[in-house]
Amino acid sequence: MDCNTLLNEFQIVKVLLVDTQTKSLVLLGKINSQDAIVTFEKTAFSASLENNAQFKLQDILESTKLINHNDIYFWSMGLLVQDLDAAPGTKVNLIYPATEKHIRKYETQKLHMVRETAEMYEQKVAPFVETQKGDRIQWVYNIIFKDKESESFVHNNTDPQNGFVLLPDMKWDQKTMNALYLVAIVRRTDISSVRDLNSSHIEYLEGILRKIKEATCEAFVMEEDELRVFVHYQPSYYHFHIHVVNVAHPGLGSGLNVGKAILLDDIIDNLKLCSDYYQRKTLTYHLGELHPLWEILKN
Amino acid sequence: MDCNTLLNEFQIVKVLLVDTQTKSLVLLGKINSQDAIVTFEKTAFSASLENNAQFKLQDILESTKLINHNDIYFWSMGLLVQDLDAAPGTKVNLIYPATEKHIRKYETQKLHMVRETAEMYEQKVAPFVETQKGDRIQWVYNIIFKDKESESFVHNNTDPQNGFVLLPDMKWDQKTMNALYLVAIVRRTDISSVRDLNSSHIEYLEGILRKIKEATCEAFVMEEDELRVFVHYQPSYYHFHIHVVNVAHPGLGSGLNVGKAILLDDIIDNLKLCSDYYQRKTLTYHLGELHPLWEILKN
Repeated sequence: MDCNTLLNEFQIVKVLLVDTQTKSLVLLGKINSQDAIVTFEKTAFSASLENNAQFKLQDILESTKLINHNDIYFWSMGLLVQDLDAAPGTKVNLIYPATEKHIRKYETQKLHMVRETAEMYEQKVAPFVETQKGDRIQWVYNIIFKDKESESFVHNNTDPQNGFVLLPDMKWDQKTMNALYLVAIVRRTDISSVRDLNSSHIEYLEGILRKIKEATCEAFVMEEDELRVFVHYQPSYYHFHIHVVNVAHPGLGSGLNVGKAILLDDIIDNLKLCSDYYQRKTLTYHLGELHPLWEILKN
Repeated sequence: MDCNTLLNEFQIVKVLLVDTQTKSLVLLGKINSQDAIVTFEKTAFSASLENNAQFKLQDILESTKLINHNDIYFWSMGLLVQDLDAAPGTKVNLIYPATEKHIRKYETQKLHMVRETAEMYEQKVAPFVETQKGDRIQWVYNIIFKDKESESFVHNNTDPQNGFVLLPDMKWDQKTMNALYLVAIVRRTDISSVRDLNSSHIEYLEGILRKIKEATCEAFVMEEDELRVFVHYQPSYYHFHIHVVNVAHPGLGSGLNVGKAILLDDIIDNLKLCSDYYQRKTLTYHLGELHPLWEILKN
């Protein structure tokens, strides 16, 4: 059966994902009573920086309608010139028949901003964090204690107190330099998150930050001011680890956003200003409804 | 002169930016021998997760052409259904006449992380900020003092000390709720950036934050915990303003990233912990090489 015929028979059941950044849409539906998934992603403009001025505005834009203007700024909506071969408007991918696993991959969760006071941390979050240890972070212990993935280590300092392992994050393709993404996992096991840090850790953190920068810049031929170095709160696992990303990285999901990421430089500076900053400070962050903490914190 | 006429006279000189992630294109050109910038950003799909299955594939997709298939996977290119009111293909922003500063903003530039100490602020940044006032922010004064764009105001509190205007940001298409992006511009003119805030501003900021949330949630039927409210440092203009974004917004460029965005909640909490926090704190942020501060701060 050809793809056009399949698409014509597609009956929408549910919108699985709307991505306003990449202009994508994922739909779950039925074709002949079997599950199917259709994914749209609008195409990028095909102009290139090298191929300057070899076209006219009219080659791209069919017509416009003004929304508003102020001084030298005008904003409008427009219709694009489209052509199936030269300028298609969208990619269309179909998975048919789709399995449960395909469907789950696309389901999105609603996010909420949470204001976690020191008291909420003590009473609700700290007890939750304790339940997240043991087997759940076995894969972390495999890396730091059993040299799992050691073939990809960028740096490995085995000092049990100050040491850490620096390695490529799974999200990085290890090719695209703009998207460089490493993770540093510390060897000591007594820090679950930023909430456990105080001024006694300043030298320790400064040492790690210095070595992260040195090792990364040596391995990938970069300058130290080209790195965005941060932690997550909430982290995805409760063993202290640090994200190391090219400052040119455009972001992926919400992992670089304020309200999730905290610069390691800011952590050190805050501890210098106030020794128990992270025990006293209300932390504001986004949390998805599928995160187990959401059920605990929402009331 | 109307915008359509201006666009018709636009002669492309140079492609300034092609963003394949957000499907954006920025062109530098001439209108009547003056510089002008046209920005395209393709629109997001307007389907929402709540409004399930209330449409057909044919409402979105006009036709398709198969590229390839393998087992259960089919990939095609397609033409989109377009309508200037209900389903425009693109936003079109025009800046005319454009200044050197506008042009530089779009040129792809290398980013650096900068550590701005209190001393660097006093000696180098504060004098620069003073040069950025006057005519450069006339468009801001048009909004707050001359009711320019007042037809789109979401909220308008005219108190000269505590008042502010809340209105849609130019980056928002005013349709896609996940990408909701408003900006609150305060009426008082004595705050250039977060560096000017101290504990005497706590009540003032709390009042603004409360009203921003109330007004936004009432106007757009949202819950208060669905808003990410932050400022930029460095801001793009030195008159205090606050960004208000749907927490589900996936980010655009680097404007939501840690190292650029600072949550208003964090500002208030920091001022409560330490009254001169923003006069003492080293601020770490990314800065592009084309930003005039880069020349001032790089050594």
